[in-house]
Amino acid sequence: MSDQGATPIPTLAPPIPSGRPPKMTNRGRTAVPISSSNSETTDIPEFEPFGMPGPRGFPPMTEYLDIWDVDMMKKPDESNRIQHRTMLFNTDYLIVRRGQEFQVKIVFDRPYKPGTDIFAIEFAIGSSPQYSKGTYIPVFLTKARQSSWGGRIIGTADNTVTVGVTPTADCIVGKYNMYIAVKTPFGIRRTRQDKTRDLYVLFNPWVSDDAVFLDDENERQECVMTEMGIIYHGAYDDVSERNWNYGQFNFGVLDACLYIMDRSEMLITNRGDPIRVTRKASAMLNSRDDDGVLVGNWSGDYTYGVAPTSWTGSTDILLTYASSKMPVCYAQCWVYAAVFNTFLRCLGIPSRVVTNYFSAHDNDGNLKTDIILDENGRIDRGRTKDSIWNYHCWNECYMSRPDLPTGFGGWQVVDATPQETSDGMYRCGPASVKAIKHGQICFPFDAPFVFAEVNSDVVFYTRSKDGALEPVKVNRTHVGRMVVTKTPGDVTRRDITDQYKFPEGSAEERAILEKAEEYGCQREKAEPSEADVDLVLPTLDVQLGDDFELSLEFINRSNQHRTVDTHISVNVVFYTGVTSSEFLLRNPTVTIGPNKTVKELVQVESKSYLKNLVEQGNLHVSVTGKVEETGQIVTAMKVYALHNPKLTVTVSDGGKVNEEMTATVEFTNPFTFGLEGVSIRMEGSGLMLPKSKYYSLIPARSSLVWTEFFIPQRVGSSRVIVTLDCAALRQVSGQASVTISR
Amino acid sequence: MSDQGATPIPTLAPPIPSGRPPKMTNRGRTAVPISSSNSETTDIPEFEPFGMPGPRGFPPMTEYLDIWDVDMMKKPDESNRIQHRTMLFNTDYLIVRRGQEFQVKIVFDRPYKPGTDIFAIEFAIGSSPQYSKGTYIPVFLTKARQSSWGGRIIGTADNTVTVGVTPTADCIVGKYNMYIAVKTPFGIRRTRQDKTRDLYVLFNPWVSDDAVFLDDENERQECVMTEMGIIYHGAYDDVSERNWNYGQFNFGVLDACLYIMDRSEMLITNRGDPIRVTRKASAMLNSRDDDGVLVGNWSGDYTYGVAPTSWTGSTDILLTYASSKMPVCYAQCWVYAAVFNTFLRCLGIPSRVVTNYFSAHDNDGNLKTDIILDENGRIDRGRTKDSIWNYHCWNECYMSRPDLPTGFGGWQVVDATPQETSDGMYRCGPASVKAIKHGQICFPFDAPFVFAEVNSDVVFYTRSKDGALEPVKVNRTHVGRMVVTKTPGDVTRRDITDQYKFPEGSAEERAILEKAEEYGCQREKAEPSEADVDLVLPTLDVQLGDDFELSLEFINRSNQHRTVDTHISVNVVFYTGVTSSEFLLRNPTVTIGPNKTVKELVQVESKSYLKNLVEQGNLHVSVTGKVEETGQIVTAMKVYALHNPKLTVTVSDGGKVNEEMTATVEFTNPFTFGLEGVSIRMEGSGLMLPKSKYYSLIPARSSLVWTEFFIPQRVGSSRVIVTLDCAALRQVSGQASVTISR
Repeated sequence: MSDQGATPIPTLAPPIPSGRPPKMTNRGRTAVPISSSNSETTDIPEFEPFGMPGPRGFPPMTEYLDIWDVDMMKKPDESNRIQHRTMLFNTDYLIVRRGQEFQVKIVFDRPYKPGTDIFAIEFAIGSSPQYSKGTYIPVFLTKARQSSWGGRIIGTADNTVTVGVTPTADCIVGKYNMYIAVKTPFGIRRTRQDKTRDLYVLFNPWVSDDAVFLDDENERQECVMTEMGIIYHGAYDDVSERNWNYGQFNFGVLDACLYIMDRSEMLITNRGDPIRVTRKASAMLNSRDDDGVLVGNWSGDYTYGVAPTSWTGSTDILLTYASSKMPVCYAQCWVYAAVFNTFLRCLGIPSRVVTNYFSAHDNDGNLKTDIILDENGRIDRGRTKDSIWNYHCWNECYMSRPDLPTGFGGWQVVDATPQETSDGMYRCGPASVKAIKHGQICFPFDAPFVFAEVNSDVVFYTRSKDGALEPVKVNRTHVGRMVVTKTPGDVTRRDITDQYKFPEGSAEERAILEKAEEYGCQREKAEPSEADVDLVLPTLDVQLGDDFELSLEFINRSNQHRTVDTHISVNVVFYTGVTSSEFLLRNPTVTIGPNKTVKELVQVESKSYLKNLVEQGNLHVSVTGKVEETGQIVTAMKVYALHNPKLTVTVSDGGKVNEEMTATVEFTNPFTFGLEGVSIRMEGSGLMLPKSKYYSLIPARSSLVWTEFFIPQRVGSSRVIVTLDCAALRQVSGQASVTISR
Repeated sequence: MSDQGATPIPTLAPPIPSGRPPKMTNRGRTAVPISSSNSETTDIPEFEPFGMPGPRGFPPMTEYLDIWDVDMMKKPDESNRIQHRTMLFNTDYLIVRRGQEFQVKIVFDRPYKPGTDIFAIEFAIGSSPQYSKGTYIPVFLTKARQSSWGGRIIGTADNTVTVGVTPTADCIVGKYNMYIAVKTPFGIRRTRQDKTRDLYVLFNPWVSDDAVFLDDENERQECVMTEMGIIYHGAYDDVSERNWNYGQFNFGVLDACLYIMDRSEMLITNRGDPIRVTRKASAMLNSRDDDGVLVGNWSGDYTYGVAPTSWTGSTDILLTYASSKMPVCYAQCWVYAAVFNTFLRCLGIPSRVVTNYFSAHDNDGNLKTDIILDENGRIDRGRTKDSIWNYHCWNECYMSRPDLPTGFGGWQVVDATPQETSDGMYRCGPASVKAIKHGQICFPFDAPFVFAEVNSDVVFYTRSKDGALEPVKVNRTHVGRMVVTKTPGDVTRRDITDQYKFPEGSAEERAILEKAEEYGCQREKAEPSEADVDLVLPTLDVQLGDDFELSLEFINRSNQHRTVDTHISVNVVFYTGVTSSEFLLRNPTVTIGPNKTVKELVQVESKSYLKNLVEQGNLHVSVTGKVEETGQIVTAMKVYALHNPKLTVTVSDGGKVNEEMTATVEFTNPFTFGLEGVSIRMEGSGLMLPKSKYYSLIPARSSLVWTEFFIPQRVGSSRVIVTLDCAALRQVSGQASVTISR
């Protein structure tokens, strides 16, 4: 080391620092901060001079228009709200849908002089409004100067001018500030920002130029305008219903939806694109990564929050998130789907909640769900790690897909449930339902994952002594057994399985599975020979607390005797298909004469399952066996969703708008033990906001009655829906229909 | 409220809780925790009995094989390492590439009896090894029992058996535990887990069944085996180089790469798929969301970390991340790309760093970059919010794309630089380069974004008095001006622009832009008439600290006089194109005779730019003007990357393996001010690990000399690379070539 001055003096370099750095600025990275918040606004100056003022400043501009008042015509019964179908929103603002004209009345200080007076209506959104980004839109009212949003003068009367404004059908969705700007020879003079003139612009499924255009009024009424919904659960052959109040028109819900996008730091400029909006929202509805809306919990322990089964609607969840700015506890799949549905309907994207029975959920887009049997044909629970959800709920939303080749618009799957075990997928979709049906899973977003949820095979392996596995049975029809949603305009369910899959066993189905394989999905190729003994489990309707009998039917299709070493296992399972406890186990040897049928009876006593029950009261029966004569494997699996006791809900007669009514909930604890820490929740669209009561104890066999007063807000039919929830008994519900007249 | 017992007592329901919940378990959600860590292992039992022991337990099993020793043949000069091309790894373990046989010698307690003795070699990875998931692989050595991985006995000699094992070409990449299992009539007996027998399996571009197969030895040598790289920066017509030591074979680097995947909680079962591995890594290389490897910082203030320009290689960064388990500060695009390149080459995925000059970076997949001029034709910096990066570096990696239709395999763009201003894209790719070239941007992942980076148009608007914007010039050739990478096997650069785009102006180019538009990319449709005055900026080679002259050439292509009101603005810019300060501004009026050329000279003095300099010493000259006679707009923009002083690096003569050598760095501060807080870093692949020195002050005009001793580790040519970095002067470098003989 040589130096030619007093220094340089070398020292040991400091260690390389790591860790959370101080908060970064955009310096060096971007010219200005990019707007990703709809709640931040920039005030546009009240006067923009064209040049320098003269020596005495600008002359008084009394001869130019002055604005006295602006009427947004925003009352629920005014034409803007009715024609834009936003009359149900409980709001103080004008809410319109894009691609469709709305009217504003401007009152000047004197009559308007066409040809002489020049004014424009300006709209701005976000913190850095910019013409070229569509965040600042001046609307001119003459044919000569057209801007992107249409503008025209509809009529004049005295000092009042009625103006029509048509936002483009692809404009940004959110909350705009509005200004009136008057041109003078010296500069632009504009109104001060006035919050009461803020304008919300939503997606518009009624307009053909909008990417969310849905050409079916019945569907639009259901998928945008309907607040009360039904979400299906249970089992494919014993479907249960949950009522849900989406509440998309409730006070504060629209602002909460915009807050969700702000919280995700979604660029303002992307908020007109339903593909980006829905994809971002699928990430934001769960709390993973981004402190989104809902925390998932499948454990059965909901001590620090509300049990997923306890919610009656989305309003509480969204308003709590928007006010606390922290994730809300807790959700499971239908809660994610329901709140996502509120978000979508609120913004005007047609959407519905669908339920897929036997959803292959945790296999990360693989088309195989593996069940490992030991060499005696019994399920090896230690080695069987895949699970099939009894059901899974997701959303479909309707939009065109300009990012894909033609043919893949229409319904799109989006799913906000975090796929924690599938390589950390915390967002899913939009994936075209048509692309899934046709095996075109090479297109964004996440189509292979959704394809596997409805198309996986269940592969049974036996494990030999030295550890090798051999496929012995492939069930190609179990998964994706049925996909259902609520019928538009009705309270019945609609089977939409055919929108996801061609019929099982059809030539198309086979061709499409082969196509999916070309795109990298792995399938089991083995075709193990089918056993000549069939095993059928009964369909049962069992009340929680009942003893019941399982009658297993063994059908010998051969001309010889068959002896089946059978393993019958009855388990309490979570709805995710995960076993909580095995409480009944039988290993009968069943002998069946040639071409005969034998019934094996198994008694299931309530005392054996009640003490092990978790969550939704699902019992999973699996029967596996090995035919002694052939070595072939026989299997059958079925989920029995036990029926919970019901709440009785009654509503007083003769409902009229603004006249007080009562709703009464009755419940009797049917058990021999007390129920502790019981929450009851009640709500009803257009009837009442969510209400809840908490009981520290409902003693054995004891009853409660809760009567609540409410004042209906609008005409039409609706429902009061109620849930009861405690650690020992979940998913108890009741409802009553109400028709309100004027 | 009525109750029939003493209770129930209703109380106010507790408020809905929100906030960070207690840590969740997998209970109810999955049957067992899913393995997402390669560092967790499960020990497989040493004895697995086939049945119950007899009354005196199992008999002594002296007649069955006992294992005395296992030789993994893992020394760098042994055939496994040479044939698998892993000899350069500095490691104590056997590292092989999948789809290719390696050998293991097993020493038994007695000679092996073929046909009688039955044993298997077992491999297990992750915490829940499972046959059906490919995480537990028993390898049988007889033709009768084939397992997924090939196995054969190559030879026997005395008690030693040489075994060949061939992992499948799609197996999981990572670290496996190995066991030898001997079958006895009573059960399986196996070796205890022994860390020294752990096996690393990598991707294999030399094997045609591997998804990363690259059929070009020259490319494979460069993109997998080469540690010393060159990354290009500067300007497209004045390209500069950065030397970088990827160091993928350095001790600890492979473990750090596996740690990155563990840290991302990537499922073990997905780690054989290069699509998933590269996508996950593009997210994990940056610290956004997931506490990944590198913290981005473009601000010029690197007080709490290492300046991005100061790094000489990836080793320090990766080892610091793996030991501290916290993000490392700081990175800009080439640092992300360089460390990502190390990750990819280390795991055996062919990869290279590419540089795109004039990268449209912050426009979120939009094909427009907007520049706003005021009505006099001068850039309106307050309203111009898009920026074009002088250059941007990303990675290409080579793989097949079974998830896409045929034709899109080969090089794939992946990018780890967080796109903070593009809707929070913190991962990017893999996007097929062929798909980008052909406008097929409907396929995953993030193709529209990459397409825009090389294909955007620059649109100049003038803003009229009332705020409306009108496009006045569209430059369709500025963005994506050139894409370059290092030539395989050479130290020159290779222009690969033609792999991303058809020639500018060709029919194919136009067709492909139209196709991209079909997939939703927005372009400027206006074709404003071109001005008949051309403006040309000179190409210059300027040393930092020089005064220089800009000669602006105005070419009048018309037959009339032209008068141009010109605005010349010279700015110090970040490499992101963001302006730091405008230090020179001229507004000359230039008059040009018919068909004449006029030169306008602008003097740029070093004193005016030196005090404003940031980062990489980039000056941006923009000239805009309005032709008085026609109202047309004339523009020209150019970046001048000032050339920094160099370090002089000399290395002692006659380099031999294991013989001490010296490297000497010399630097003279050329400025009239002292340089404070100076870091110097030095490293060289196969020569020395990263070393650094810190000088608190290098006085004005003073020199330093730093001599470092080192011992070369391997034969061949390499380079010693050195950087000097301080707040006042960044990106000073030097290098010396070294050839080491035996």
